[in-house]
Amino acid sequence: MLVVMKKHATEAQIQQVEHRFAEWGIPVQRISGVERTAWGTLGNHRPFDPDKIAVLDGVDYVHQVTEPYKLANRSFHPADSTIRIRDVEIGRPDEVILMAGPCSIESEAQINTVAAIVKESGAKILRGGAFKPRTSPYSFQGLGEPGLKLIRAAADRYDLLVVSEVMDKSQLPLMQDYVDIFQVGARNMYNYDLLKELGALPKPVLLKRGISATLEELLMSAEYIMAGGNPAVILCERGIRTFENYTRNTFDVSAIPTLQARSHLPVIADPSHGVGIREYVPAMARAAVAAGAHGLLVEVHPDPDQALSDGVQSLNPAQFLMMIDQCRQIAAAMGKQL
Amino acid sequence: MLVVMKKHATEAQIQQVEHRFAEWGIPVQRISGVERTAWGTLGNHRPFDPDKIAVLDGVDYVHQVTEPYKLANRSFHPADSTIRIRDVEIGRPDEVILMAGPCSIESEAQINTVAAIVKESGAKILRGGAFKPRTSPYSFQGLGEPGLKLIRAAADRYDLLVVSEVMDKSQLPLMQDYVDIFQVGARNMYNYDLLKELGALPKPVLLKRGISATLEELLMSAEYIMAGGNPAVILCERGIRTFENYTRNTFDVSAIPTLQARSHLPVIADPSHGVGIREYVPAMARAAVAAGAHGLLVEVHPDPDQALSDGVQSLNPAQFLMMIDQCRQIAAAMGKQL
Amino acid sequence: MLVVMKKHATEAQIQQVEHRFAEWGIPVQRISGVERTAWGTLGNHRPFDPDKIAVLDGVDYVHQVTEPYKLANRSFHPADSTIRIRDVEIGRPDEVILMAGPCSIESEAQINTVAAIVKESGAKILRGGAFKPRTSPYSFQGLGEPGLKLIRAAADRYDLLVVSEVMDKSQLPLMQDYVDIFQVGARNMYNYDLLKELGALPKPVLLKRGISATLEELLMSAEYIMAGGNPAVILCERGIRTFENYTRNTFDVSAIPTLQARSHLPVIADPSHGVGIREYVPAMARAAVAAGAHGLLVEVHPDPDQALSDGVQSLNPAQFLMMIDQCRQIAAAMGKQL
Amino acid sequence: MLVVMKKHATEAQIQQVEHRFAEWGIPVQRISGVERTAWGTLGNHRPFDPDKIAVLDGVDYVHQVTEPYKLANRSFHPADSTIRIRDVEIGRPDEVILMAGPCSIESEAQINTVAAIVKESGAKILRGGAFKPRTSPYSFQGLGEPGLKLIRAAADRYDLLVVSEVMDKSQLPLMQDYVDIFQVGARNMYNYDLLKELGALPKPVLLKRGISATLEELLMSAEYIMAGGNPAVILCERGIRTFENYTRNTFDVSAIPTLQARSHLPVIADPSHGVGIREYVPAMARAAVAAGAHGLLVEVHPDPDQALSDGVQSLNPAQFLMMIDQCRQIAAAMGKQL
Repeated sequence: MLVVMKKHATEAQIQQVEHRFAEWGIPVQRISGVERTAWGTLGNHRPFDPDKIAVLDGVDYVHQVTEPYKLANRSFHPADSTIRIRDVEIGRPDEVILMAGPCSIESEAQINTVAAIVKESGAKILRGGAFKPRTSPYSFQGLGEPGLKLIRAAADRYDLLVVSEVMDKSQLPLMQDYVDIFQVGARNMYNYDLLKELGALPKPVLLKRGISATLEELLMSAEYIMAGGNPAVILCERGIRTFENYTRNTFDVSAIPTLQARSHLPVIADPSHGVGIREYVPAMARAAVAAGAHGLLVEVHPDPDQALSDGVQSLNPAQFLMMIDQCRQIAAAMGKQL
Repeated sequence: MLVVMKKHATEAQIQQVEHRFAEWGIPVQRISGVERTAWGTLGNHRPFDPDKIAVLDGVDYVHQVTEPYKLANRSFHPADSTIRIRDVEIGRPDEVILMAGPCSIESEAQINTVAAIVKESGAKILRGGAFKPRTSPYSFQGLGEPGLKLIRAAADRYDLLVVSEVMDKSQLPLMQDYVDIFQVGARNMYNYDLLKELGALPKPVLLKRGISATLEELLMSAEYIMAGGNPAVILCERGIRTFENYTRNTFDVSAIPTLQARSHLPVIADPSHGVGIREYVPAMARAAVAAGAHGLLVEVHPDPDQALSDGVQSLNPAQFLMMIDQCRQIAAAMGKQL
Repeated sequence: MLVVMKKHATEAQIQQVEHRFAEWGIPVQRISGVERTAWGTLGNHRPFDPDKIAVLDGVDYVHQVTEPYKLANRSFHPADSTIRIRDVEIGRPDEVILMAGPCSIESEAQINTVAAIVKESGAKILRGGAFKPRTSPYSFQGLGEPGLKLIRAAADRYDLLVVSEVMDKSQLPLMQDYVDIFQVGARNMYNYDLLKELGALPKPVLLKRGISATLEELLMSAEYIMAGGNPAVILCERGIRTFENYTRNTFDVSAIPTLQARSHLPVIADPSHGVGIREYVPAMARAAVAAGAHGLLVEVHPDPDQALSDGVQSLNPAQFLMMIDQCRQIAAAMGKQL
Repeated sequence: MLVVMKKHATEAQIQQVEHRFAEWGIPVQRISGVERTAWGTLGNHRPFDPDKIAVLDGVDYVHQVTEPYKLANRSFHPADSTIRIRDVEIGRPDEVILMAGPCSIESEAQINTVAAIVKESGAKILRGGAFKPRTSPYSFQGLGEPGLKLIRAAADRYDLLVVSEVMDKSQLPLMQDYVDIFQVGARNMYNYDLLKELGALPKPVLLKRGISATLEELLMSAEYIMAGGNPAVILCERGIRTFENYTRNTFDVSAIPTLQARSHLPVIADPSHGVGIREYVPAMARAAVAAGAHGLLVEVHPDPDQALSDGVQSLNPAQFLMMIDQCRQIAAAMGKQL
């Protein structure tokens, strides 16, 4: 940590900062510039809240040298982490894992039709929501438990794993029996009560980046889950909010290599929400694979025009299979299988 | 609603759209341009999901003419709504309501000291958090129920109301006994499960704008609460995330008149989070009053340098009282009392 | 400046950094942490490009302690700067200077009508554009020199100063004869060739913040003008681009105290562009005055419905005079005259 | 165009709008809803400024159905445009054109070394700046004409084309003799005076997206050049400004397919500025190729640690050649050559 005093800080103010560090038993090294005084603390001292120094009189600012996340940090865990569920291993350097399915589970026929296509595509994980966070209280809110039963049955029929979104911690006991991976949606990335509960469960978590979350905040939310004892977190880029309006979101493809550089956790991409318009989803999926994503999460629906949610960004089966074929060729060019 | 076809849409595609509207019993008026076909639906037809039309082949886009929120909409409720709690009335055109207190409740001494200052300033509502959403799992997370007891006792001693943040719906039964207004923080503005529960309770809700929420999304979240039967929602601007980094957030003062034009609900401002740096809080508070805010929510702490959270943006008692004095003069220039 | 090495930097990499500093004759102080090595350079050393260190192997990052602007920096010039043009002084702590007029100069009748109203309002400076940067090549592009003649004559008739926008450095020789203050629009804040030319002229410059410029970049653009020898720069906040779409721009009222804290230059606000919708302009003007702006730049048109540009955000004379009256009362509450 | 009245608009206000359209000779179709009145104008009427309607009393808003750009619009020019310079053709569906070189031209040795590497990589176009827009007036500002001579000679030696940035229209006569393609940098995308001049010249223009420009604004800037008579515009995505700070810019890969859908012009990507950090440039280049870019613009320097500008994002020769090799494999997977 670097603490920098204002240009005209008084000697008393300088003393106060040193006194505070001494009180806390934190060794610092003083840098006496011509115009300013500063201190560096770089050792393995016990953690303290930088704001406690920042608020002192005469302090210009405090600059953190070390990232605030530890368990998710590649510095402390240089090798890639992979997450294994039965025979599926997420995070391998030589494979792109495909997760696909409808936005919402709507009916037995719908989820079974999709599951068959998803299986045909080579995907290993079936996605589908039973609890849906919708902007409008007047929109379809998901089937709830009956939906979970349907997706579990469909997945079992086709030997697929299930990933499904949890919106509130009260849904966890119910969902545990049906899903293999809990999905935390973009709107819940800051729901720390939920994250803490997930930290205490023995199932992997697919954690989506909030719509305006920095990558550091995403890693801090992963840290919440990991600090609770659950190391199996999959990070997911799904588009951020910007000023651009030709797309629903701006797909931040740079998040893929950036997160992989800073963390050992697997990083996947959701091109469907990433761009939010069906026509552009295949280009985003190819870009994600080319950028090095460990997996893709894609929305596909047997009849998107009739979908109860997200029809605008869902692919129909033919579009989906064509896209996967393109992605498979990009993956091969990267030396990976999909 | 306006539905616009692509330039080279076929007759069959045009028919499909008309067929869909006919199926739903929604009257439309066709506009046959030289290059494109379009339809308008402006009547009081039953609601339908615009995405259901947007996904049809040949449709360029769908444009919504009417706002998606109803209960929060000033069009349907032209007069200002006010919210009365005991002898306090929030939303009056001739008064600026002041809510102030520490970020976190820390101890009996701390909350009592603050409550005395808050009372002295003329404020009617004491704020303080017992459950704290913190970016880091390693930061202070709030005192919980003991904190709620302390703030209730302090408020009662000084005849103040209590507003405190709820982070998860599981906390509601406990909190009901202690607080007069439930605060929904920026990170929970999209927590629809929580909003639905608040809609079923008989207490006012102070709803903060999410850090990158549009004003329309804020109004839709208010709609969730109101649709559940609770009309007592107070909207709060508290700064948004932008590219600027000389401030912690960008205080969107234009949200105040914009929300007041579109909704009948009271609109208050939180200048402390709005700008996030103590030095600039008073200027933001004055700006909010001058822009027409119905109230202010401010962080004050007896010793901000020792605060367990948000010390950087908390005012000390002298700064706070000076700021309130300035705001009172601005309010007077606006013909209001504070 | 703080230079921080990566956690696993080698001794050779550490030597290379020290060698580079030695080569440049820049004294550094080494901080040897348990996990990392870092250096601080806080003295009055000769300037060097931080990227030259940042690119070296093993360097994690370089953190600048000192602001990159010097002449615009309050640290080096603690007292407020004011800019005097004839009997008008911009930047005084006890006055709010009003600049008003149409977006574009359209005709003799138009500019004379506006000038009369502007004078009546108490404003001292008449604004109006002869060269207009328009998003569409098919929109009205300004009257050019005939427009400059019209505004000069109108201003002289009513004893007002003239501020008008320069779009390209080739317009400067012509404009010099007609205007008292050169305005640099948001789209030209990064036009360094233009800024350099303005630095060599003996007239004040009103420099608008770019639509997505950080405040630091705005101050760096001021630095370009000042480094050329022209100290008379007026900074202007005029709204930034965000995700919000209920307003045309997001008026960043926090820029006012923030710029005033970091720079000694006068800071004014343009509430018309700041929010971009006529209905909300008065609230933004009041907020700017309450936040401490040294002046306002406002669009007023005798008949906004017929304006050739910016009619949507221009006030008509009655609205304008009412708004100024409100602002005058806010100014009085702040102990200032307007 | 759709014009929508407010809910409680009066009959007189409705009449005024119809009167205005009649005055202009623009045929409209009225849509009389239960709550509101609206009009559609979809024909090939003469252009008019929508703000002229938007400002009328009682009008809620005006919604433009048709894009404001014509010459750049794919609707009016369905086939892809390609731009041919000698034997190079930019915009072909089966080729990815590579443009590479240093940020700044620094010396004869430097540019010759780079040119050799660029040629070796298979690139056809050499980039390098002689005029540099720098945030600080104290940074290296480019070699000017001597630099242009050096890049021309180096390009000729290796049979490459030259692309170089123009910062101000006064530089055009000089530059015409040295460059094959004029580059308009992000900071000049709104410099309409410059764009108009480029519209009158017989050389292609590489137009970079402004740092916070919408794609529609980028297309409007292309329209400025094309309206002047120059159809040879190459669009370039180069990263936008967002809240994220782990990267210098956010590379908006979705701009590639989005621009290609709306315009017939070639679309290339600049991954170096797109992400701004050397380590992540290769992943962005691969993503751009996978998303369908017609070309890449890349920064490479013989010794980035000694570069006078942009060293942080420049690749060294070995990194560059490895990246091109990866991109070539992605291109092949897309059925393209590079």
